[in-house]
Amino acid sequence: MRYELYYWPEIQGRGEFVRLALEEAGVPYVDVARGKGGSAAMFKLMESERVKNPPFAPPFLKAGKLLIGQTANILLFLGARHGLAPRDEAGRLWVHQLQLTIADFVVEAHDTHHPIGSGLYYEDQKKEAKRRTADFLANRAPKYFGYFEDVLARNRGSKYLVGKRLSYADLSLFQIVDGMRYAFPKAMARLEKKVPGVVEVYHLVEKRPRIGAYLASEGRIPFNEMGIFRHYKELDA
Amino acid sequence: MRYELYYWPEIQGRGEFVRLALEEAGVPYVDVARGKGGSAAMFKLMESERVKNPPFAPPFLKAGKLLIGQTANILLFLGARHGLAPRDEAGRLWVHQLQLTIADFVVEAHDTHHPIGSGLYYEDQKKEAKRRTADFLANRAPKYFGYFEDVLARNRGSKYLVGKRLSYADLSLFQIVDGMRYAFPKAMARLEKKVPGVVEVYHLVEKRPRIGAYLASEGRIPFNEMGIFRHYKELDA
Repeated sequence: MRYELYYWPEIQGRGEFVRLALEEAGVPYVDVARGKGGSAAMFKLMESERVKNPPFAPPFLKAGKLLIGQTANILLFLGARHGLAPRDEAGRLWVHQLQLTIADFVVEAHDTHHPIGSGLYYEDQKKEAKRRTADFLANRAPKYFGYFEDVLARNRGSKYLVGKRLSYADLSLFQIVDGMRYAFPKAMARLEKKVPGVVEVYHLVEKRPRIGAYLASEGRIPFNEMGIFRHYKELDA
Repeated sequence: MRYELYYWPEIQGRGEFVRLALEEAGVPYVDVARGKGGSAAMFKLMESERVKNPPFAPPFLKAGKLLIGQTANILLFLGARHGLAPRDEAGRLWVHQLQLTIADFVVEAHDTHHPIGSGLYYEDQKKEAKRRTADFLANRAPKYFGYFEDVLARNRGSKYLVGKRLSYADLSLFQIVDGMRYAFPKAMARLEKKVPGVVEVYHLVEKRPRIGAYLASEGRIPFNEMGIFRHYKELDA
């Protein structure tokens, strides 16, 4: 069985958290909307009358008969199947808890450029974006990254977030650091000085052989101004 | 073992999704911060050096040695333990997927009154709140509730979201309908006409004996202007 990932073909977005897990696991998958059918193939499945469990939005993963939506939920599934999470209940819940906190961060990072409405243009909410981003960079981003630094510090004798091995939460932490570096290079450079453990996870992840190969490949879509992490000079104070 | 729920004592907020599950399950629990120690007891645990898995924010649940954070994660745990989710993997993931979609909705509902920053007063972002709420009521809320209506329609022969039995996703759907009725009575009255299945779940849940008793008790904190769902007349267009 080959997994089928359905996500917007032009952006990393939320799909990237799933791609990183699939790449690290080394399992074959098709990134459906980046193939011949494009996004139409994705919409077709989303809107099909035959689907009993329709996803609210991409990404979603087809795994045999299962159709799984919501990024963190897909990772819960993949983590258990491919050794990207502890096997015991306590460890499984803890990794998932961290992932859900990363998911909260992702919403806030997105809303820096879209504080009023995701269906409106950035240009139509630029003034509000400046205010929201100022609060995000001054308060929210330091709070989140400080939290992950604290989690790392409490996990004594390990450089990873959970136990002694890499989990999907580490991959996702890598991704939000990378996104922040793209979107807010100045603010992130300052912030990184305070969270050396987080930066170390970033480097550990980028050096994993499969992740490294993936990041250097065409599979990794470059960051751009359509995704979650966008670089608008005027916002990076 | 008695569960210990830790959440802000003055509001329903995200803790209410957990309270509803605990009430429906009929399991004993202590709502710690509503006891003698107040919020201080909650902060003490959150900030304790001895906690290996610190939560980012309330709510969190102490279950014996486990300390579980993130609302949806707590429900994943309780759902499996107390028959509030299917036992098979596919069903378990599907209920969780719906819960995560409800969690996304909750963020958007909150941000109607706090589009710029959760640490700022409503009064300091009132103009932006008006714009965001207009988009939320015109586009987002109908999209979410229309989605749940569609999920109900596809679950033929059942009035619940998943399979033939009540799950924690139904309890949570009840909660967001109740919150919307409080926050936006006019807009919600219009919206409810289009989602009769959702309204039926609402009534099924409020009529459950344990939930009914809970809603009529002092355990149910009234909605107010400190929580997620707030009623500001000027926002309910």
